Parts: sequence; C-alpha cells; structure tokens
Amino acid sequence: MPVGTLASVKGMPQDVLEELGVQILLGNTYHLYLRPGVETVRRMGGLHGFMSWDRAILTDSGGFQVFSLTELRKVSEEGVTFRSHLDGSSHFFSPESAMAAQIGLGADIIMAFDECTEYPADGQRARDSMELTLRWAERCKRYFEEHKHQVPWTHAESAELRSAGQPRAAVPTWAGATQVLFGIVQGGMDRELRRESASRTIDIGFPGYAIGGLSVGEPRELTRGIVASTLEHLPSDQPRYLMGVGTPEEIAHYAQSGVDMMDCVLPTRAARHGLLFTSEGKLSIKQARYAQDESALDPACDCRVCQRYSRAYLRHLYAANELLAQVLNTVHNLHYYLATMRTVRTWIRAGRASSTGVSRM
Amino acid sequence: MPVGTLASVKGMPQDVLEELGVQILLGNTYHLYLRPGVETVRRMGGLHGFMSWDRAILTDSGGFQVFSLTELRKVSEEGVTFRSHLDGSSHFFSPESAMAAQIGLGADIIMAFDECTEYPADGQRARDSMELTLRWAERCKRYFEEHKHQVPWTHAESAELRSAGQPRAAVPTWAGATQVLFGIVQGGMDRELRRESASRTIDIGFPGYAIGGLSVGEPRELTRGIVASTLEHLPSDQPRYLMGVGTPEEIAHYAQSGVDMMDCVLPTRAARHGLLFTSEGKLSIKQARYAQDESALDPACDCRVCQRYSRAYLRHLYAANELLAQVLNTVHNLHYYLATMRTVRTWIRAGRASSTGVSRM
Repeated sequence: MPVGTLASVKGMPQDVLEELGVQILLGNTYHLYLRPGVETVRRMGGLHGFMSWDRAILTDSGGFQVFSLTELRKVSEEGVTFRSHLDGSSHFFSPESAMAAQIGLGADIIMAFDECTEYPADGQRARDSMELTLRWAERCKRYFEEHKHQVPWTHAESAELRSAGQPRAAVPTWAGATQVLFGIVQGGMDRELRRESASRTIDIGFPGYAIGGLSVGEPRELTRGIVASTLEHLPSDQPRYLMGVGTPEEIAHYAQSGVDMMDCVLPTRAARHGLLFTSEGKLSIKQARYAQDESALDPACDCRVCQRYSRAYLRHLYAANELLAQVLNTVHNLHYYLATMRTVRTWIRAGRASSTGVSRM
Repeated sequence: MPVGTLASVKGMPQDVLEELGVQILLGNTYHLYLRPGVETVRRMGGLHGFMSWDRAILTDSGGFQVFSLTELRKVSEEGVTFRSHLDGSSHFFSPESAMAAQIGLGADIIMAFDECTEYPADGQRARDSMELTLRWAERCKRYFEEHKHQVPWTHAESAELRSAGQPRAAVPTWAGATQVLFGIVQGGMDRELRRESASRTIDIGFPGYAIGGLSVGEPRELTRGIVASTLEHLPSDQPRYLMGVGTPEEIAHYAQSGVDMMDCVLPTRAARHGLLFTSEGKLSIKQARYAQDESALDPACDCRVCQRYSRAYLRHLYAANELLAQVLNTVHNLHYYLATMRTVRTWIRAGRASSTGVSRM
C-alpha cells in the first residue's frame, strides 16, 4: 500500500496511481484529523469522495503517529492526550474517538486504536502495554459495531452529492456496505507475549489482523523473528497485515512468509530524496557520475520514466531541485514496488514460496 | 509557449504536456548554460534528446535574464559580463557565445542576443541601446550562418545515440535540418525608435521577429500601444513573437492583433502559488471559503483536474503544502491558456478578429 498521508500520495495524480496498478492506498488518521479535519472529509463522502479515489483505502488508527510524538503525548487508560505537531494545540484520542474519526474518514479498512510499545521495553512494560491495547481493542470493536452505519457512504449527503453534478467518480457506488475493522497484535519483542496478544485479539474477533509495534528501532533480524513467530498464531484465511514495512527485499520476503498486506513510506520518501530502487540495486540519482549517463534509470524496467528519460536528465532535475524530479522518481519507485509484489504473487501462485531469487529483486 | 526554464515545465511530465496539446516549449539559455551546462545537453542530442521532447522548442538568448541581474552585470560593446545567481561565479556572454550556446542546446528556434533596454530610459539611452542590439544582431546572424551546421541533431553522436538502445523518443528524427534564428526589435517606449529598430532588423534579415524590451515595468497601456505600433512595421507573413506576455486577456488580445507567438511564466508560476485562471475569472484556491466547496475548480473546464477533483480537495492540497497541489494547479492553468489560444485561433480562422468576447476569456 503506497502511503497517502494527507489524502494524496505526494506528487501523484490519482490517474497515475490507477495506471500504476495501485489497488489500495493508506491514509493517516492523525494527519487527516488535523488537516483538513474529519468533518470536511465526511461531508465529501469520505476519503473516496474527497480525493476522488474509487479503489480501496485503509486508514491507520492514529496510534502510531501519536506514539511518535514522544514529547507531546500522555497516555491514560481512557486514551492519549497529544499536542499537534503543526500548532501545538491539545487533542485527545480514545479508542472511541479514533473509531469515530475513521468512520468519518470512510476508508474501507480501519484499524483498532492501539498503543505502539516502545523499543526497548522491559517485560512488565511490554505486558502492561499489551493489556492496554487488548482493552482498547474491545472498546474499539464495541464502538465500531454500534456506529458502523454512520460511514459517510450511507449518508443522505452521499446520494445528494451523486446527483448534484459533482466531479466524476467523486462518490463510491457501494453505499450500504460498511467498513471492516482490523485488530492489531502488540507484545513488544517477546514471542510469548506476541502469541498471547494474537490469541486474545482473535478471541475478540476481527476480519483481519495487523502486526504492530515493529520497525520501531529494533534490529532487522529481531523484526524478522517476531514476524515469523507471530504469523504462526494468526489465521491464514484472514488478511494478515504487517505495518510499516519495508524495503523491496523485505516485502518480497514477508509476502512469501504469509503476510498479505504491508505499507511503507520508503518508496515515496526515498524517491523525493533521489534514492531509486532498480533491478541492479539502489541508485542515488544525485551523484555526479550520472550527469552524462544517457542510459535509462533501470534498463530492465518498463515504467514510463525508464521508457522515456535518461539518468542524465533525472540527475539534472534532481540537482536543479526541479519539481519534476520528485514526480518522476516517485512514479518509478512505486512502479518498482508494485512490480515486486506482482512478481511475488506470481511465485506464490506457482507454489514457489521459497525465497529463491528474492535477493535479486 | 509554456516556459520550461531548466528543460522542464515545473512539475509536468512530458507526456502530460503532450496530452495538454503543447506544441512548443521555451527554454532559458542563461539557466541551462549554468545547469546542466551546454556541453551536457549537446552530447544528449540537444534539448530534444536531453528532455525527451519531440515537439518544437525555442530558447531565448539569455539577454533578458542577464538584464535582470541588475547588480551582477556589466555591458560593453563586446558583450555582457555577469555573475551567476547560483554561486556568484563570473561569466561572459557575447553575441557569438550566446549563439554557440543556443546552437549547442539545439532548440528549433533560437533568439538573437540583444540588450533589453531598461524602463524608464531617456531618448539617447534608448537609441544607444537599440544601436547596440542592431550591431549585436548582425554579429549573431554572421556567427549563426557560419556555425549552424553544428547543431547537435546533425552530429555523429546523434546517430550513435539513436542506435545505442536509448530511451524511446530520445533523439529527433529531422537530422540534417538546421535551427532558425529570430531577430529582436528594441527601441524602448519610443514609437519612432521601434519603427527604426524593426526596419533595420528586417534589413539584416531573419525568418521571424520578436518584440523585446516590454513587460519591464511600464504601464500596461503603454505596452499595448508599443506592440500595436511595432506590429505595423513587421512583415505579417513571418512569425511575430511578443516576449514575456501575459495574462489570458492579453494573449487573446495580442493574438488577435497579429502576434503569432508569446511566452510567459504566469500560468505555471501562478499555479504554484495557488492562483488559478477560470472562465469566471481568477481564483485563489488557498482561501478558506473553498474548504468545503464540492464543485469543480472551473465547472466550464474539461481538463483532467476539473473533471475529477473538487475545490475542497485542491484547497486542502494547497493548504497542506502537498506537492500534488502544484502539479494539479499547473495542469489546469496550462489547459486554460492553451484552450484560450485554441479559441482565439478559431475566431481568427472565422474572420472574427474583433475583441468580442475576449473579456470573458
């Protein structure tokens, strides 16, 4: 899932995302709650209508972003008080208000409000945090079940929008359906706590499960171990979502390990910093060695950028701080990630779930 | 002509420009000379190959940009010494070196190196400046005639590039043709000097003529008067190019007055600042009044942006400083300008060269 923090994958018009084959986008509840605000998005028919995107959308719960505001938050049983990174204003997210926000934003998949356990955390802290996340998961599910009919797709406004000469594709056509709420497994870096978190989250019961609390500073090997052991305890016939991962090698590895969904800002953020993923490895387009390199960025790539432009041109755009550098680099990196996933899907369908060849991705 | 200062119309992939119907782009010699440098562009087959753009390109001579570096330039009979706005390094443009640079950049239309007379200028100063531009025009033409075969299209490198597995469309196919050099009329705000400048520039002989030295701070009414009187002295069967103009109303007016070509950064620069041209007038998308406005930016516009997105979404993108704001706003403004010119062409073909309806553009 490419990340569209503020209802936009930075620099990418929606038709370009469609052409790239993006099936689902991620939006960030914390950011959208601050700008433009849930009520504005809700009135436009939710994120689908607001950003004119008919394909699937997932919103996170805001928990991870709030967790990142180390100096600006205070956690209690009731929820989290935090200060906006924009203007320092004070806000409060509870499991209930995070659900209300996500229902108003109207994504297809929404996430339980969890506490992302910091790393490192001692055993007692990891257990206390996990228990809090489990109590919050129950509150999230209860609130969601009682309010899921308030999703903006089913509102009268949606029907009005549809008939009021709005821009094409502004309103989804599946009015009547509701969102789905996924649970999140925590438990720090302790395999037994992870097992318990998975088991008790499954007891609460969700149509999909995420593995949270990773990519928080721990060594990559530890991440792999925790993911592998947690996956064993999650049902393979429901979506399993690994949050905040990763490099092309990692997404290929985890997809073959049984992970169904992942999101990461890496392809888009790296692109804006001139770091490009290619079949021959990472390439930093800012380097002077490419100033007169007339070959394609990745000769093995069939994206629009590699089909049309030279490394010399892309290097010039980056060096001259041209907007187009960020646009073209993002198109390429997203294409590379999506092509990686297409390849992995082919392998999985063909029963080749080994990691052969993954290192060459 | 949209302006592509550094071999890119800011934020616009070339295929988007093609889809918008852009027939010709302008590149700035001064900027390209500094970054990435003429030699780099020449080696890639000129601007066509470098930026992968098969349609027409015009480069200015660098004279206007150098003129803008008020504190950083020194003019002599031989040429202009100036300091780079990037790093303060010292450079020198003569008529000959400006021609050499433009031949190396390989646009289709290149411009004589002129002195853009400042405003206001007294009678003697305007005459002296005009005489200098005329002497430089002769030197430009002489140098161009002697070196025009050095255009990168005809170089051996071009043929090599074509056969070396380069990105698609990287090399123009009209190898063997040469560029064309346009003369520039100066003369300050004095109609008699303008007449004399036109007449003596025509005596030197060029396949097209530009009206320079306007939009330098003078009142708009004065610009109109000078353009009208200068046009009378330029042959109507050769291209007449008014440099650095203007608003949609101005381009409609001047095109109907007999101007064939214009360039301006206004549509692209204004777009990046949230100022949009619509059939109902200018619109500043940053205003809070659009925060929940679900209508299209310009309901009468058939561009991709107006067909898909709401004012509320565009306002959000701008307010949140999202890259996509600059991209989408630029698409709309370029479409608006190009649609304006298409309408004016229709009027001219239909013999309706009056200004009826122009004020509604």
